[in-house]
Amino acid sequence: MVRRGGSVPELVAAARTGQVRAVARLVSMVEDASPLLREVMAGLAPYAGHAHVVGLTGAPGVGKSTTTSALVTQLRAAGKRVGVLAIDPSSPFSGGALLGDRVRMGDHALDQGVYIRSMAARGHLGGLSWATPQALRVLDAAGFDVIIVETVGVGQSEVEVAGLADSTVVLLAPGMGDGIQAAKAGILEIGDLYVVNKADREGADVVRRDLRGMLRLAERRAGAWDPPVLATVASRGDGLEELVTALDEHRAWLGESGEGERRRVRRAREEIEAIAVTELRRRWEHLGGRAELDGLAAEVAAGRTDPYAAADLLVAEAGGSSR
Amino acid sequence: MVRRGGSVPELVAAARTGQVRAVARLVSMVEDASPLLREVMAGLAPYAGHAHVVGLTGAPGVGKSTTTSALVTQLRAAGKRVGVLAIDPSSPFSGGALLGDRVRMGDHALDQGVYIRSMAARGHLGGLSWATPQALRVLDAAGFDVIIVETVGVGQSEVEVAGLADSTVVLLAPGMGDGIQAAKAGILEIGDLYVVNKADREGADVVRRDLRGMLRLAERRAGAWDPPVLATVASRGDGLEELVTALDEHRAWLGESGEGERRRVRRAREEIEAIAVTELRRRWEHLGGRAELDGLAAEVAAGRTDPYAAADLLVAEAGGSSR
Repeated sequence: MVRRGGSVPELVAAARTGQVRAVARLVSMVEDASPLLREVMAGLAPYAGHAHVVGLTGAPGVGKSTTTSALVTQLRAAGKRVGVLAIDPSSPFSGGALLGDRVRMGDHALDQGVYIRSMAARGHLGGLSWATPQALRVLDAAGFDVIIVETVGVGQSEVEVAGLADSTVVLLAPGMGDGIQAAKAGILEIGDLYVVNKADREGADVVRRDLRGMLRLAERRAGAWDPPVLATVASRGDGLEELVTALDEHRAWLGESGEGERRRVRRAREEIEAIAVTELRRRWEHLGGRAELDGLAAEVAAGRTDPYAAADLLVAEAGGSSR
Repeated sequence: MVRRGGSVPELVAAARTGQVRAVARLVSMVEDASPLLREVMAGLAPYAGHAHVVGLTGAPGVGKSTTTSALVTQLRAAGKRVGVLAIDPSSPFSGGALLGDRVRMGDHALDQGVYIRSMAARGHLGGLSWATPQALRVLDAAGFDVIIVETVGVGQSEVEVAGLADSTVVLLAPGMGDGIQAAKAGILEIGDLYVVNKADREGADVVRRDLRGMLRLAERRAGAWDPPVLATVASRGDGLEELVTALDEHRAWLGESGEGERRRVRRAREEIEAIAVTELRRRWEHLGGRAELDGLAAEVAAGRTDPYAAADLLVAEAGGSSR
C-alpha cells in the first residue's frame, strides 16, 4: 500500500534507522487511529521492548517540563537517544495542546537524537490517551534508549503513568502543599524515585525529610526497591547527574528482580485492552437496533430499563453474535 | 433472596424512604460489585433521574472539602436532602481512603438528611471509579435532592466529573498557580460555575478577573450557558447562598435548553459502558487458552505478536463466540 512518504514497511524501516520524520508520521497515525495502524504495529512488534520508559509526574508548578528538558540534556550528554511524550490534559474536548512541542523544549528542537511529542489526554474510558501505550511502542521500536512520559496533574493520570512506565519519577517542590496532600494524591504508592525540585528554595529540606519519613512508614516486601529521595534545581541542571544514575540503578534492579518483565507485560496488557475496548466502543456506536448504545442510554435515563440489562445487550453483541 | 438486613426489594424500599443505613448498604453492594447488583439496579431504575448532580472539583488546597461541607449546610437550611460522594484518589492500589467519612465532615454526622461517602478512585480503564455512576444512581433513586460529587486533583478526573454531573463547579483559590496553569488543566472547558474560594486572601480579585477574561475569550454558541464566577470564603459560609442560587439557575437552564436531558443520557451511557467493559474485562481474565489476556500480554511483550492481533482475539471472544 503506497502512500505519501512511502509504504508502511518503508516507514517502519525509516523510523528504525532513527529518522525523526518517520517516527513523527507513525505517531500521527496512532493519534489519528489510522486504518493502517494494524500493519504498523505488526511491523514494529519484533523491535519493541528495549527502551527504558521513564514516567515523570507531579502537581502543576513543580517544574515537570523544566526537569524533563534538563533530563533530556543529561541523557544526550551520555549519548542516549531520547523520546518524550508529554501528556497534556489541557484540552480533553478539543484535543488541542496549549503549548506546542517546539515552544515547550526549544533547546532540543534541532537535535536529531531527541523526539518530543505532546499528546492530548483524550481520556474517557481510555483514561490516559489510549494512544499513549501505542505511541510508546512506536518510539520503543524506533530505537530510542529512554522514553520519558511526562504527565500534568495530580490524581488518576499518575497512577496510569506508573502502570505504563518502567521507572516512575514523582516530582515535588517546596510550598506545593503539605504531607497530607501528598499522601492524598497517592504518590507514596507509585514513585520508584522521588525528586524534590527547586531544592534551593526554602522548605525543600523539610519536604525531603517528611517524604523520607512517610516512605519509611510504608511497608515494603523483602528485596523490594527502596525509593530514593533526590534533590534538584532543574532550571540550572543541578542534581540531574544523580537522577540519571538513580534511574540506571532502578533499571538494573528491574532486570535483576524480574519486576521489569512484569511491568512490560502489564504495559502490553493495558495496550491490548485499550485497543479491544476502543474497538468494542466503536462497534457499540454502530450496532443499530435494540443494542445500540445511544438508544440504550436514553432508555436507562428514562428509567425504562436498568444499566445492567443494557450492558448485557452490549456484551452479547460485542463479539458480533449472541451469547 | 433473604439476607442480613432484608431482601433486595426490602432494601430498595427502605432506601427510598430515606433510611441512611439502607442507602449505605446499597452503596457498599456497588463498591463490592455484589452479585445482587443487577437486582438492585433493576429495582432502582424506575426511581432515578430526579436528583441534581453537582460535580465539585479543583486542585489540591483550594478548599474542596470545606466548600462541600458549607454547601451541604446551605442546602440543608433550604430543606434539601443531600448526598455526597467524595472520590478519593489517595489510594488507587490499596483502595483505602486516607480520611474517613466521619472525620471529613463531622458537622453533618448526625443529620439524617445527609449521606456522605468516600469512594476510592480505583481507576484503571474505568477512570473514575466504575462504581461512581452506580453509586450516583443509588442516591438518586433514594430521593436525595442534590448529590455532590467531590473529586480531588487536576486533570482527567475533572473531565469525568463533568461527564457525570448536571452542574460542574470548578473551585479555585488565590496563590494556586497562574492562568496558564488553569488553562493547562482544561478547567475552562468543563466548568458550569466557577468559584474563587478563600476570597478574603490577597490575589483573589486577580484570579476572578483573569478567569472572567479567559472565559470571555472562549467561544460559546448562541443560547449557551454563560458560566458565572463567584467568590466564597467557605470556612465561614460567605458566598454560599449565592452559590446555591447560581446552581438553581443552572439547573433551570438545563431544563429549558434540553442540555439536562443530554447530560442524563450521557451519564447513563457512561454507566452502561462501564458495566459492559468491566464484565468484558472479567471474562478476558478467565477465557483460558489462546484468548486469555495475561498470556496474550506476555506474547506481545516478547514481540511474538502485536497488540492489534491480540485485541482481535479478545474482541472475538467477548460475546462468547467468534466474529
